[in-house]
Amino acid sequence: MALLDSIASPRDLRDLSAEQLDELAAEIRDVMIRTVATNSGHLGPNLGVVELTLAIHRVFDSPRDRVVFDTGHQSYVHKLVTGRHADFGTLRKEGGVSGYPSQAESEHDIVENSHASTSLSYADGLAKAYAIRGEDRHVVAVIGDGALTGGMAWEALNNIAIARNSRLVIVVNDNERSYTPTIGGLATALTSLRTNPRYEQVLDLVKKRLNQVPGVGHAAYDALHAVKKGMKDALAPQGLFEDLGLKYVGPVDGHDRAAMEQALANAKRFNGPVIVHAITRKGQGYDPALRHEADQFHAPGPFDVQTGAEKPKGRIWTDHFSEAIVDLGERRDDVVAITAAMMHPVGLDVFAQRFPERTFDVGIAEQHAVTSAAGLAMGGLHPVFAVYATFLNRAFDQVLMDVALHRCGVTFVLDRSGVTGDDGASHNGMWDMSILQVVPGLRLAAPRDVTRLHELLDEAVLVDDAPTVVRFPKGPPPEDVPAIDRVGGADVLARTGDKDVLVVAVGSMATTAVEVAARLTDQGIGVTVVDPRWVKPVDPAIVDLAREHRLVVSVEDNGRVGGCGAALLQTLNDAGVRTPFRLHGIPQEFLDHAKRDVILARIGLDAQTIARTIVEDVTALDRGLTLVEVEHPA
Amino acid sequence: MALLDSIASPRDLRDLSAEQLDELAAEIRDVMIRTVATNSGHLGPNLGVVELTLAIHRVFDSPRDRVVFDTGHQSYVHKLVTGRHADFGTLRKEGGVSGYPSQAESEHDIVENSHASTSLSYADGLAKAYAIRGEDRHVVAVIGDGALTGGMAWEALNNIAIARNSRLVIVVNDNERSYTPTIGGLATALTSLRTNPRYEQVLDLVKKRLNQVPGVGHAAYDALHAVKKGMKDALAPQGLFEDLGLKYVGPVDGHDRAAMEQALANAKRFNGPVIVHAITRKGQGYDPALRHEADQFHAPGPFDVQTGAEKPKGRIWTDHFSEAIVDLGERRDDVVAITAAMMHPVGLDVFAQRFPERTFDVGIAEQHAVTSAAGLAMGGLHPVFAVYATFLNRAFDQVLMDVALHRCGVTFVLDRSGVTGDDGASHNGMWDMSILQVVPGLRLAAPRDVTRLHELLDEAVLVDDAPTVVRFPKGPPPEDVPAIDRVGGADVLARTGDKDVLVVAVGSMATTAVEVAARLTDQGIGVTVVDPRWVKPVDPAIVDLAREHRLVVSVEDNGRVGGCGAALLQTLNDAGVRTPFRLHGIPQEFLDHAKRDVILARIGLDAQTIARTIVEDVTALDRGLTLVEVEHPA
Repeated sequence: MALLDSIASPRDLRDLSAEQLDELAAEIRDVMIRTVATNSGHLGPNLGVVELTLAIHRVFDSPRDRVVFDTGHQSYVHKLVTGRHADFGTLRKEGGVSGYPSQAESEHDIVENSHASTSLSYADGLAKAYAIRGEDRHVVAVIGDGALTGGMAWEALNNIAIARNSRLVIVVNDNERSYTPTIGGLATALTSLRTNPRYEQVLDLVKKRLNQVPGVGHAAYDALHAVKKGMKDALAPQGLFEDLGLKYVGPVDGHDRAAMEQALANAKRFNGPVIVHAITRKGQGYDPALRHEADQFHAPGPFDVQTGAEKPKGRIWTDHFSEAIVDLGERRDDVVAITAAMMHPVGLDVFAQRFPERTFDVGIAEQHAVTSAAGLAMGGLHPVFAVYATFLNRAFDQVLMDVALHRCGVTFVLDRSGVTGDDGASHNGMWDMSILQVVPGLRLAAPRDVTRLHELLDEAVLVDDAPTVVRFPKGPPPEDVPAIDRVGGADVLARTGDKDVLVVAVGSMATTAVEVAARLTDQGIGVTVVDPRWVKPVDPAIVDLAREHRLVVSVEDNGRVGGCGAALLQTLNDAGVRTPFRLHGIPQEFLDHAKRDVILARIGLDAQTIARTIVEDVTALDRGLTLVEVEHPA
Repeated sequence: MALLDSIASPRDLRDLSAEQLDELAAEIRDVMIRTVATNSGHLGPNLGVVELTLAIHRVFDSPRDRVVFDTGHQSYVHKLVTGRHADFGTLRKEGGVSGYPSQAESEHDIVENSHASTSLSYADGLAKAYAIRGEDRHVVAVIGDGALTGGMAWEALNNIAIARNSRLVIVVNDNERSYTPTIGGLATALTSLRTNPRYEQVLDLVKKRLNQVPGVGHAAYDALHAVKKGMKDALAPQGLFEDLGLKYVGPVDGHDRAAMEQALANAKRFNGPVIVHAITRKGQGYDPALRHEADQFHAPGPFDVQTGAEKPKGRIWTDHFSEAIVDLGERRDDVVAITAAMMHPVGLDVFAQRFPERTFDVGIAEQHAVTSAAGLAMGGLHPVFAVYATFLNRAFDQVLMDVALHRCGVTFVLDRSGVTGDDGASHNGMWDMSILQVVPGLRLAAPRDVTRLHELLDEAVLVDDAPTVVRFPKGPPPEDVPAIDRVGGADVLARTGDKDVLVVAVGSMATTAVEVAARLTDQGIGVTVVDPRWVKPVDPAIVDLAREHRLVVSVEDNGRVGGCGAALLQTLNDAGVRTPFRLHGIPQEFLDHAKRDVILARIGLDAQTIARTIVEDVTALDRGLTLVEVEHPA
């Protein structure tokens, strides 16, 4: 590993010979493969951007020039050449190197969020800021073809096309699989477009026209036509169009480092926005990845480096949802399924094979997913949109105004809700139960186990024609937790001794709550554990139970602010129920990456901490005191 | 008005002669002009779609065929020919005809939400549903050119382009102002594109390629290339491309009813998605509107029908913000301003004239507005994004993950927050203080008057480099409410008698709270009124005050669920402060349109109701009872 050891910063790349750079690329691939084989992580995308990233760092001068990675999981190579090689073995481990860019790790990192399609907007803002401040700095955005399907990316191109002074280089990372020679043929054919003199004349006219329109009232006009120009350049590969704000270079073989460097150097010299179109192969340089049918080892779990064989995985929540939705589809032919470019990760692949006509992959387009679901519902079907909890945030307005305002029968299935851990702050699904609280008429269920997943999904889809949500966490589900009673719509999971403590356990926290009950019973504290099953709206039965107990404790794997506990507290207050209330949830902050269990224990969402807090609270109440201040205030 | 009286449903249009239809169009314009002159409302857009709407209703068979209007304010003509002529004089009045489509009003209305760029997604869903159900129904979406700048619209086109079986007609309503002969020249020039045989050959290749790719794993690929095809058709006007899923017809003169009917009839016969490109004039048929420089009477207040002279308007919150931001811009050259296609309505027009280089109109693109603001902040500037409160919902994820996660110094100025009234459910700004509560590190200020607007905007922009929000309502601001004391960061506005009641008044509710205090004082109840100024995070001084009083009452013009009152309740609970708490806010439901004051009184956000509730609560507390249940539970 002699070469990689010598790279302390991107500037060290400049002195290397072509042979050394080839050797370095091989070393980088080797490090990434071995690290991900042990730690898990994103592999295929990073194997595809080795030469591209080296070229960027040789042509541009980070951190003076800024490099923004869309969906930051393609930043491993960047990390290895910006001083993080020695620590790379800690990838995705607690306290170790993050799987995404991190400002805390390096001055070379800037954008940490890993939600897709954002890079062009950041880059547009950065480049405009440098232009205004008169700073001679370039901004490089690296965006995959998939991310270009998101509406945000189009909004950004729209604006970038008229940002004449922006020193902005957009590297479109088209991997070979989604950019084949056929499309290269399109590029060739469209040469006729760019060499057509009438076409250029008309673009000139448009430009003049735009310049003639004064003031700000015409901005929508400008923007619309900017989009047209921007689109045209982005979609129809073409040569130099100095007349336009948006220049296109390419396509370039993204694994030909020298060619990439030349293209980038050309782009850099043009002091306006430029698209550099790089063709790459996901998994490049590692046969097991290239052979991997589904996704070229997009994000494998631990695997054998020699064979590429992944360690067997247990069944996770997603697998059970996958079964449940197929079962629903068999029984009801009005059930249709939607995914936003994540057919397999959200478990809709089996449904799609069974009911291809009733399955829609809309691309990375959560907004369209939600509003087209409203349309499908208005048309007499019942759509189920399966999505990671954190990504539904992208379509909050559509859930509220398009689905709920029209009382559409749409079911949202939120996978990876709660603490997800390894992938860092932007993947935790800790917001949904707060922001969805405000949506009138929407009902939200949190199944505690697989039996309840089937049961609640059925109720969500079949019982009434209204907006519903079913949310469950990442990883394997717990053993089933049987109910000993049903009160209202809620399951009673434990009931011992006097009515001292009512524990209201949301979803997967039920298992923890039952363990809490066992600990309290040992200490002579009477406890009732209920799972509301439907956490929104608040079940009147829970209000009655709260009135009968001395202490109410809510436990949820959602942000503390405005979640299920907060809604219950507010409902109890409205109802004049003044039972002391203790709220357990995720502290309202962006969590660093670590394993899910480690994080849950660290933030006090474990049986031991909750039981201890309850004992303290009950002791305080026995003494006629109020509850002590909470450890994790909002 | 003989003719319009005879139109009870769209079918009655079919028997009219060409002359009668011309006469009808004139009658419709006359009714709309006279009604809006009295009631206010949207005029310019509706004058532009008279013939277009008549043509749609003669060619299609609503409600069997469905008509979806993007930003529903262009639906007046539709309303007049679907049985609502007799009631049209009640336009936008309480209990009267809504300014937007309304399912409750008519079976011909389907989409009520008036947020922009959604129609194509609804229509895509509807058309797919009818295809799946085997129903022979068409869907017509009417979308303006402005709405096409929203990312959602591109996401939808992306999907529509591959929806071969969708009986979907997209009417692009390009008004003449934003679609000039220059662009018509572009259309002519691009004829060379569509008649180029090589181009068609390559499209054919792409199509075959798409058909060869089996299964669902390639959906992102399909989607990307679909977007390319969709864009190309949308952007490059062209003739019949039967090879493609998306057909283009046009451009058509949208005021030539016969031509529109023919284009629509052609589009209808093609049983797949079709774009019909209509060129219209905003304000057509009414000289004062056509002459109106700023926006062709987009949405005038009351005006004189003969002269078009608008009744003078008083100064509203927006005008004061407009002054404040210019003042800030003079003092700080790092302040930049952003609008999403609403330069004048949000009051940035003066700033834009003064600082054109520091002003960005990004189109109807709230997502890009927010994330490019993050980029601008990372680049060393301080962006101020001024937007209607309800539209920030479109960019919740971007506020959370792009701005707040990176602790960017971006200020969001939310105009038209709280109850807006006339424009119905989707315009009320009653969600922001709930969903923004969950955003870590974001601070939110609600100025109670103009003096505080200047003061808090300054604090938001200048004091620290972090995400901040300043929100104020629609309409004229109240008289200044002076502070008699400052406790922590909060202003004390009234303090009389014993410490019976603490009223925590958010923003513009301060005026109401001071009136409440006067009423309570008359009845011998001691009251302290505080304006927290910064409502997020909760000021520890408010917690201390709450501890000292017998009753805490919060008053806010935001949804009751998860808003400022809820955050205060939760903070008090965490701190062990058990003072009885009464929360006043907007009931968590979609409000029907009416005047703002009427709605506030109806939902109990008026001084009389609040004072009466407090008297009842204090009486209950005097008797040792708990508070009665709230009138408007969530």
